[in-house]
This record gives sequence, C-alpha cells and structure tokens, in this order.
Amino acid sequence: MEDSIMLLCDIGNTSYHFFDGLNDYKKSVDDFRPDAVKETVYFISVNAAISQTLEHLKNWIDLSNFIDKDRYYETMGIDRIFATRAIDNGIIIDAGSAVTVDVINKGKFMGGFIYPGINAMQKTYENISPALAYSFNFECDLDIMPKNSQDAISYGYLKTLYSEVISHNLPIILTGGDAVKFKHIFQDAKIDDRLIFNSMKKIIKENEDKLC
Amino acid sequence: MEDSIMLLCDIGNTSYHFFDGLNDYKKSVDDFRPDAVKETVYFISVNAAISQTLEHLKNWIDLSNFIDKDRYYETMGIDRIFATRAIDNGIIIDAGSAVTVDVINKGKFMGGFIYPGINAMQKTYENISPALAYSFNFECDLDIMPKNSQDAISYGYLKTLYSEVISHNLPIILTGGDAVKFKHIFQDAKIDDRLIFNSMKKIIKENEDKLC
Repeated sequence: MEDSIMLLCDIGNTSYHFFDGLNDYKKSVDDFRPDAVKETVYFISVNAAISQTLEHLKNWIDLSNFIDKDRYYETMGIDRIFATRAIDNGIIIDAGSAVTVDVINKGKFMGGFIYPGINAMQKTYENISPALAYSFNFECDLDIMPKNSQDAISYGYLKTLYSEVISHNLPIILTGGDAVKFKHIFQDAKIDDRLIFNSMKKIIKENEDKLC
Repeated sequence: MEDSIMLLCDIGNTSYHFFDGLNDYKKSVDDFRPDAVKETVYFISVNAAISQTLEHLKNWIDLSNFIDKDRYYETMGIDRIFATRAIDNGIIIDAGSAVTVDVINKGKFMGGFIYPGINAMQKTYENISPALAYSFNFECDLDIMPKNSQDAISYGYLKTLYSEVISHNLPIILTGGDAVKFKHIFQDAKIDDRLIFNSMKKIIKENEDKLC
C-alpha cells in the first residue's frame, strides 16, 4: 500500500471531505462525480444514497465494513463511531450542529450523550423569550454565578456541559466545526481536526492484510 | 393585619395566581376584574399593563416596592426575585418554560442561570434531526453513559444540569410546573409549590410597620 496514492474521504450529507495525507478539502455532494477519481479511496459515509452508488466503484473502499458494530449502538453514526476509534482513553467532544460527547476507556466505547450545538441552543433561548435573544459569551467567567441575562444563558449552556464533562476526569479531545469556540471553556482540551482521518488510517493499518 | 381577609396574588402574563391562606387558584388576565375584589391583595406582577391598572386600586398593594432591587439585576423578573427571597441557603430550580437556577447563600442572592424548559429542549433536538425526536426519559440511569438515542438526549439534557447543580453542594428546592418531573433526577430535593407565596408572606412580615 503506497501512501502517496491513497485518499481518505469522510462523506456527510452535504459534502465529501477528502484528506490526501497532507491537506484536506471538501467537494459538494451535488456536483462531485466519484467515478472520476482514479486513486484508491478509503471512505466512510453517513449518506445512504452515496454509499449505494459507491458500491459499484471498485476503487472506493467502505471502511465501515471493518468495524465491529456490535460494540456501538444501532443508530450511532459511522462518523461518530470512527471518531471514538481514534483514541484509547478520553472524552471526545464533537461540536457541530449537535455536540456529541463520547467516552472511551482502555479502547472501549463506554457510551455517549448528545447536546445541542451553539446555533440550535441560541435559537432555543430566543424562542423561549425575546429577552433571551443573545449570542453566547464564551468569555463568560464560569466560576461565578451570572447576574445578567446574557451570562445567565451562556452559563446555562456552557457550564452545565462543562460540569458534566470534567466529572469524568478524562483527557478531553475537541473536534468539529466549533472546536475552537469550545476551547475557551475546555482550556486543557486538545483540538484534533483530523480525528476521523486518523481513525481511518488506524483501521486501514489494523486491516492491512485484508485491504492489500 | 388580619390573616383571614388577606389575599396574595402572583400575576403572570396569562393569569392571576391567588392564595387565600389555605388554597390557591388562578384567574385569566383576559376576563378577571381586579376592581371587583374588596379584600386587601398583596401582589407581585411581571405583567406591566396590569401593574399600571392596579396603581389606581388602593386595596392592591405592590410588594415589589419593598424589595431592594440593587441586590438583583435589572432584567431579573420579580417572580424570580421573590422566589430567591423565600430561603436563606440553597439552590432554587424553577422548572417552567425556562428552568431558572438561583443560588442563595446566607440570605444573599449569589446569581443564577437559565436553562431551557423540557418542551423547548425537546423541540431543539427534534429540529437538529428527526432521529432525535424523542420525549426525555426521566427514568434514564444517569450513572451510566447512554448507548441509545433517547437516553443520549435525556442524559444530555438532564445529567449536564444535574452535574452543575450538585457541584454547588447546597440544599435543592424545586418549584414550577415541572417540579415533579425533575424530582426524578434531583431525588434529595424538596418540592415547594408555594415558594413565591411564602416569600410574599415573609416580605409582608418584614414590612409590617409600613403596611399596617
């Protein structure tokens, strides 16, 4: 297996997210033609329609076939499963439209929970009352109880999550589009933008005999 | 001051909530006529229009005038202020369309935060993905990490709040329409449906010389 011609791809509902070993880039699902790719592509996909198309392309290899799905749960997304495979010990916060929080202990997935993403939660407060229509203050001091509305909702969103996450006393890994924002709150966390790609590489390595 | 002819009233946006010393009952703001009441009524109101009307009725006494508002914050509702005056030490969870959580230490308001109410948060998850359109499971075991979607959102909503609230290590008082549901989570909490009325009585007692 030559690294130079290997592509990794994480397929979502709106885009193909590629990693060529050096750089990552995205292509829209609307106009990208997977049959135009000549290299071997190792992929995972939460997009059922695209997964079906790719079954007919020999050089697109679905890495989800190399996962023991019994260790997870039925409705758990393959991207989330792969994220948890990237580390042996820790708590992964994947901050996107939802915030998924997964615990891994000695290589074993212990379970996880789902918290609303930033935009979803801001809308929630706004819908409860126009008086709560603020952006979250990520600089809010979470060591003191708030005495104004903006901090009262920022604390309500962020400190509750923080208190729960640190109670696990595990190394924290941040990933996803809002990782940098959450780094203000989880200051000791490590940001890893390539968690899923690293995990894909790991799965490929573990299954080298079957894949080559 | 004779207890027998004293009425307490907590006025919201939709109703007058009365307490006659024995029972409590509600009247709609749409058709209730405050000038038909002959007894003395001690009230608080978050309803600005009604507050204005009541200024002209001698037997309706606004208890918000007996509160030192500098101890709170400008946009804090008078009902929330009164709730915090009911106790000297503890954390009050008022579970309604929003969940307000306020800390009182040695009679002093330390601050508080706002968390979405049950309905608002369920809608939030549903809007993120139809796959998350569940009711919360209040029987969910919060001591183990979830491995199914319903528990993953239930834990995300409830355990985060729980972890934050218990970190204050204070007696917990539950009030508001969803107090009974939250009692499943905060099993050591005390439910107090009459927190605001008790607080009103306390303020009346403290200001007896001015009021009689």
